[in-house]
Amino acid sequence: MESKKIIYVDNAATTAMCDEAIAAMAPYFKEVYGNPSSLHSIGQIAKEELENFRAKIANFIGAEQREIYFTSGGSEADNQAIRSAAMLGEIKGKRHIVSTNFEHHAVLHTLKRLQKEGFEVTYLPVDCNGLITAKQVEEAIRPDTALVTVMFANNEVGTILPIKEIGEVCRAKKVIFHTDAVQAVGHVPVNVKEQNIDMLSVSAHKFHGPKGVGFLYCRRGVALKNLIEGGAQERGKRAGTENLAAIAGMVAALRIAVENMEKNAKKLTALRDKLIEGLLKIPHSKLNGDRLCRLPGNVNTCFEGIEGESLLLLLDAKGICASSGSACTSGSLDPSHVLLALGLPHEVAHGSLRISFSEENTEEDVDYIIQEVPKVVEYLRNISPVWEQLEKGERPHLI
Amino acid sequence: MESKKIIYVDNAATTAMCDEAIAAMAPYFKEVYGNPSSLHSIGQIAKEELENFRAKIANFIGAEQREIYFTSGGSEADNQAIRSAAMLGEIKGKRHIVSTNFEHHAVLHTLKRLQKEGFEVTYLPVDCNGLITAKQVEEAIRPDTALVTVMFANNEVGTILPIKEIGEVCRAKKVIFHTDAVQAVGHVPVNVKEQNIDMLSVSAHKFHGPKGVGFLYCRRGVALKNLIEGGAQERGKRAGTENLAAIAGMVAALRIAVENMEKNAKKLTALRDKLIEGLLKIPHSKLNGDRLCRLPGNVNTCFEGIEGESLLLLLDAKGICASSGSACTSGSLDPSHVLLALGLPHEVAHGSLRISFSEENTEEDVDYIIQEVPKVVEYLRNISPVWEQLEKGERPHLI
Repeated sequence: MESKKIIYVDNAATTAMCDEAIAAMAPYFKEVYGNPSSLHSIGQIAKEELENFRAKIANFIGAEQREIYFTSGGSEADNQAIRSAAMLGEIKGKRHIVSTNFEHHAVLHTLKRLQKEGFEVTYLPVDCNGLITAKQVEEAIRPDTALVTVMFANNEVGTILPIKEIGEVCRAKKVIFHTDAVQAVGHVPVNVKEQNIDMLSVSAHKFHGPKGVGFLYCRRGVALKNLIEGGAQERGKRAGTENLAAIAGMVAALRIAVENMEKNAKKLTALRDKLIEGLLKIPHSKLNGDRLCRLPGNVNTCFEGIEGESLLLLLDAKGICASSGSACTSGSLDPSHVLLALGLPHEVAHGSLRISFSEENTEEDVDYIIQEVPKVVEYLRNISPVWEQLEKGERPHLI
Repeated sequence: MESKKIIYVDNAATTAMCDEAIAAMAPYFKEVYGNPSSLHSIGQIAKEELENFRAKIANFIGAEQREIYFTSGGSEADNQAIRSAAMLGEIKGKRHIVSTNFEHHAVLHTLKRLQKEGFEVTYLPVDCNGLITAKQVEEAIRPDTALVTVMFANNEVGTILPIKEIGEVCRAKKVIFHTDAVQAVGHVPVNVKEQNIDMLSVSAHKFHGPKGVGFLYCRRGVALKNLIEGGAQERGKRAGTENLAAIAGMVAALRIAVENMEKNAKKLTALRDKLIEGLLKIPHSKLNGDRLCRLPGNVNTCFEGIEGESLLLLLDAKGICASSGSACTSGSLDPSHVLLALGLPHEVAHGSLRISFSEENTEEDVDYIIQEVPKVVEYLRNISPVWEQLEKGERPHLI
């Protein structure tokens, strides 16, 4: 019996590690295992490697070595960046933050908690394509604004925001600018100096690195407060024994991602555009997020009259592993806050499908998806009471 | 040329991973790599494994599966436990915390920050052997006490505190009891039910597991607040994609540690006792911490008239990797806050040496250390102006 082929197209949720990253971790398990804070040679060898890795990471994003703080991942980095800027703001009596209404929950939930603590947050509304302008940010900044936090690229609809321009505005207004770049780093060019970024959060497992590791870039001159207190690791800004093996894996994965970025982007863009074209042939379907200003590997569509969760499960049975939106919010019955932010009605937002490619995916994968999705959509519509009403004209089509 | 043998006796700082833990991680890098929050089969397989691991961890410490929250390590778990209990206390108008004056910095620095936020902390003084009594805790608890946090075993002097009795007192007084068990789990018997523990922090790399992973036990019925906000992972209490590979490694390492605990403890106790006997033959030396109520693998001594850092560096040159205290505070010129808490004068506390064994160490290692340390101490004393004064009777011996 032939085993079923699995097509994994949920790379925005997580990726398989690349062989280079796996190999890079190996020496740090039982050979170079010292605690970088130990004074003896076993510890100092680890410390030296740690600082070499920090320099490499800095170099990948145009930062300086001492501007990189290793964390357990993107969520921790987001939490630390935002709470740190809020604490600094509070000291100066600044208790206002500017963000968008379609950030990742690591940002949104941190902001909600700050609101409970007395902060005021302006959530800029994204347009129907999932974009905001630097002008919106400029107009929202007030004398008491402590922080602007706007994601680099959206995790669900893949839109890439005008980070450089927003950074310019923030620089001119002397407001700290943080960006959640978890979906961007390793996929599109990121240069913190050129793009005027003060703080930036990254997670390794989104670019074939290990889970449980990431980093926070914090520009020299911007004070950083701890989220995790304790030992003096990471210049005293993040306590906990450094996870050298995972950091080694992250560096290897990011090196490969950066070296192959142009080539990969070209390939992924071709896969993406072919898939968009194929899926939009399904009647009453819609692409979510800007057609062009989006991550190379991201496709997000809605199909009227169906439930995204059912679509996913039937596709899974056909060997296609996709998502209806963010993995971090799965299990929730609410429709994606991102799609609602784009102005989609609840009924439509429920019928979403996110396909996120990696460079391991092929044109055959795309062909198979284009072949299978319409069948599944048709099947689900045939058993959908909503679709029946739509077809009978008892309710109007929304897309 | 023969390569120099390295004797690593700094296992309280970190350990080399065991082969079983390394092997256990491997399948999760590029085979079972799904995001446990994803609905498709790749994600659901990961989720199933995650929950199996959680059940195993729970079983090792006498907890229930749903009482285990995976974290990036011990420091994060300490921070979350303490801040969570403080937040809960605040709601009820309870702004007092009881702890000791020789906790790990992950606890102490979190408490210092809470003090800045208006909390009051009673730091119970440990006695000259590095112990406190449950009675001290009982007397310190007030009607507005939100939390008692007392470490299970001290990371520098290895003393094991009367956790069960302290837990009893807290249970009777209806105060949340947290213990930093980073040095205890995997080394001495820990059972949260029998020992009346409400919250407990653990780090995997202290028992031959991977770095960057640990867990927080939080008893059912004790509400837990987030330190890291975001996705709904870990029952909504700790955001961030779960680090399944590291969790697998931690489970394997803890299984081996628990299975071999009795055998290892017997072996380590013999090594420890032989080393203590050997080192205390050095004139004007002293054992720090209780002679018997201490971790099987911990030896901590002071030698009058020398600097611990110089001792370490010379021992390192002889292939002995030891510590002067906690790795987390190395680089600091201050003497160990733990040794000062035990009542040692600054001059004596500076001359400390911590040897922490793992079951990989041998009697030959001990013999070599007993042979080399006296030579190094003598050498350092010969060049020490302080020792000269002591020998001439110009200042009194303190030990």
